[in-house]
Amino acid sequence: MKDVVVIGGGAGGVPAAIRAAQLVGEVAIVESKDFGGLCMNRGCVPFGHMMVASGIIGAISFGKKVGLSVKEVSKDYPILKKRQDELIDFMRMGVTTTLKKNNVEIIQGKGKIAGKGKFDVDGKTVSCRNIILATGSGWLKPDFPGGDLEGVINSDDLLNADELPKKVLLFGRSPWLLEIAQFLNRFGSEPLVATPDKSIIPEESKTIRSRLRKVLKDEGIDIKREAKIAGASKAKGGLSVELNSKEGSETVTVDKILYIERAGSLKGLGLTSIGLDENGEYLEVNDKMETGAEGVYAIGDLTGPQSRHYSHFSSEGGIVAAENAMGLDSSMNPKTFTRVLFTQPQVAGVGLTPKEAKKAGHDVVVGAAPYGMNPFGMLISENEGIVEVVAEKKYGEVLGAHFIGAGAAEMVGQAILAIRMEATLEELATTSFPHPTLSESLAEAARDALGRHIYLP
Amino acid sequence: MKDVVVIGGGAGGVPAAIRAAQLVGEVAIVESKDFGGLCMNRGCVPFGHMMVASGIIGAISFGKKVGLSVKEVSKDYPILKKRQDELIDFMRMGVTTTLKKNNVEIIQGKGKIAGKGKFDVDGKTVSCRNIILATGSGWLKPDFPGGDLEGVINSDDLLNADELPKKVLLFGRSPWLLEIAQFLNRFGSEPLVATPDKSIIPEESKTIRSRLRKVLKDEGIDIKREAKIAGASKAKGGLSVELNSKEGSETVTVDKILYIERAGSLKGLGLTSIGLDENGEYLEVNDKMETGAEGVYAIGDLTGPQSRHYSHFSSEGGIVAAENAMGLDSSMNPKTFTRVLFTQPQVAGVGLTPKEAKKAGHDVVVGAAPYGMNPFGMLISENEGIVEVVAEKKYGEVLGAHFIGAGAAEMVGQAILAIRMEATLEELATTSFPHPTLSESLAEAARDALGRHIYLP
Repeated sequence: MKDVVVIGGGAGGVPAAIRAAQLVGEVAIVESKDFGGLCMNRGCVPFGHMMVASGIIGAISFGKKVGLSVKEVSKDYPILKKRQDELIDFMRMGVTTTLKKNNVEIIQGKGKIAGKGKFDVDGKTVSCRNIILATGSGWLKPDFPGGDLEGVINSDDLLNADELPKKVLLFGRSPWLLEIAQFLNRFGSEPLVATPDKSIIPEESKTIRSRLRKVLKDEGIDIKREAKIAGASKAKGGLSVELNSKEGSETVTVDKILYIERAGSLKGLGLTSIGLDENGEYLEVNDKMETGAEGVYAIGDLTGPQSRHYSHFSSEGGIVAAENAMGLDSSMNPKTFTRVLFTQPQVAGVGLTPKEAKKAGHDVVVGAAPYGMNPFGMLISENEGIVEVVAEKKYGEVLGAHFIGAGAAEMVGQAILAIRMEATLEELATTSFPHPTLSESLAEAARDALGRHIYLP
Repeated sequence: MKDVVVIGGGAGGVPAAIRAAQLVGEVAIVESKDFGGLCMNRGCVPFGHMMVASGIIGAISFGKKVGLSVKEVSKDYPILKKRQDELIDFMRMGVTTTLKKNNVEIIQGKGKIAGKGKFDVDGKTVSCRNIILATGSGWLKPDFPGGDLEGVINSDDLLNADELPKKVLLFGRSPWLLEIAQFLNRFGSEPLVATPDKSIIPEESKTIRSRLRKVLKDEGIDIKREAKIAGASKAKGGLSVELNSKEGSETVTVDKILYIERAGSLKGLGLTSIGLDENGEYLEVNDKMETGAEGVYAIGDLTGPQSRHYSHFSSEGGIVAAENAMGLDSSMNPKTFTRVLFTQPQVAGVGLTPKEAKKAGHDVVVGAAPYGMNPFGMLISENEGIVEVVAEKKYGEVLGAHFIGAGAAEMVGQAILAIRMEATLEELATTSFPHPTLSESLAEAARDALGRHIYLP
């Protein structure tokens, strides 16, 4: 009998299976489609790759300032797409190889729970000690009039197409829309972004939100907020869309509407067979990734709203679930949940924003250091970049850090580690980061919060 | 009477003066030339700027892989140089503004110590409570036959020239030579590097050294090791150089020989007037930046061999010296001394290498994670990149971390913080870094050291 059966071979399921096997468990993993899940096949990896290309276009454009000029950049999407597909194939192969090397049994098929201590793959029921549900999320149907028209696509469709749309409306709540919009804009398409919310990155601090908005606007990417598609219909040359937003009402003609809304798919997992509710937006778990049913864990997109659909959140959960299933006592660290956006400049945030920290009852201090005052930031003209540190006043414990600028997705690692280690502002302020780097601004932001910045005016 | 007089307005002196003033000291700073010192005027900043340009050339070249091709890159050095000079002017202005805003008195002139509790500027003697020596380092004369020829230059001369040399021999022990060589190579010059030592980055771990060597070689930059210039003489078209090295003997004709060797200039500082020795290679200080003489501190290049000439080492020392001079009890953290190299790929190292850790008597464990197995690393083809973590076995305390790859200079910040906070391998291994980033490899390297890597084959 298997000790652990993982249902879903994506960013959460794979590390869960490997970790359980390391702890000398008999482990199987069930996957109905491609190993690597959304992230590797249709998410972080292909879009990350596009953002790499997008960053190079940004670098070429910056090059003029330092004496490097090119007449014309030819942009060949099929070449990019081919490399992307090859990389994904290679990574997918790597995943199955690693699973096999760790003696994880691979089961191709559609898995679900079949009552306490049992799972079912395509009609065959098998017993097991623990189940880790890692089935991810699925597409929600567009909910606007005309949402079922042919030109309304999701990001899978975008990736499958051989060429990029010429003019496209990106609509939804996913921060991904900003990455895709910037890529499309730089690759010669004409993107328009609209979100039903007040911001497309509502969880970021106000400082970060307004700076990103400015950069994108300067680049020609407008974001319509509090937007609603009143209707979409076929028109000459594509789709005619009636768009109402805070910015006014307008009718736009586009080739495509790219709609991204996802949620955990609770139905079809056999949750009711073990007494769990399958009607929620997502499956509730505790910090140990335990569901309400004994021996059943759940991780990743299945366990949180779209704003938590990050692959590192899945993989951390996977390792925690595997360790608990194998008898250890592990927990997620809710304080280090991190958001990232691979636009140029990148955006990254960990922990509490100033507003959230106040709301949580802390006596809050905030410090900031703009990259426009940082030597390396000046070299790369990172004028809209900034790092903001949030702490509580009494002990100076760091509660959050928020970045916009080059390399934010890597630099946030320092703040994650600071929060993980319960570092104080004093400790951050006296950490000697190398010169000339943007990291120096993290120490300076901490000094700013302590009222003793050195290099800021 | 001044509480603190800082002699030298460079990367160490400026933060020293500001920090002392923040602690409500009456402070003066003495500078004979340009505020900002070597780093800002003739070091990290201009060379950092060149490395930014060099990185863009690298990015353009990589672009082909993702469908971005350009016919030709025109390289206009005067444009780069103009921006560089403007940035330096701007930063220099920023330094004096910040000093004034902090009520630091600025004294232009050549300062030295004039006995206990006294300093002298251009012949005028004034009393003060504490002195912080921050005069940096100076050029050593080339010690090879022909070293006094016109074509033998240092990096100041390179920066002052309006155009780049066509063919140049870079000779010495400074890792900077590698940055400059890569820049020159990418900007159309023909560099040849030679070092008297076994390696030009002898302090880096073996893994890092061999990988950097390979990348540079693939790019066409050869490094001659254990090299000696047997003689240099004027020849048609420049200098004829007899070069002996591990790789053999040869005669090369070059436009210029770029020679970088620097040491603290102990003479002329009035050290003997307070009983200190002015004959050493550098001035000995303890972790509090105290010299042997009461009330006299020294920081930066003056206090270490060339391998310690890093501006962040100076600024950390400056803050520590200022705090001690103002009655606090501060120390440098010897465990977090960091080396960085802004080549592409970047190199960064903090703490002990495996060899050093063994030599220090630790029971050592080492883990590594190559970027060739990291999803983001694959996207950017960072095949020679790697992170290596060094720890002691019993408690798993992290002792060092060594990086080669994109963004190493920023990512090393995570390791600096880990060492600063006395993090263990277990803590690093369970830190959730965002996906897809190179930072994930730091956690994976820690897991590798613990014998439980997840994603490595």
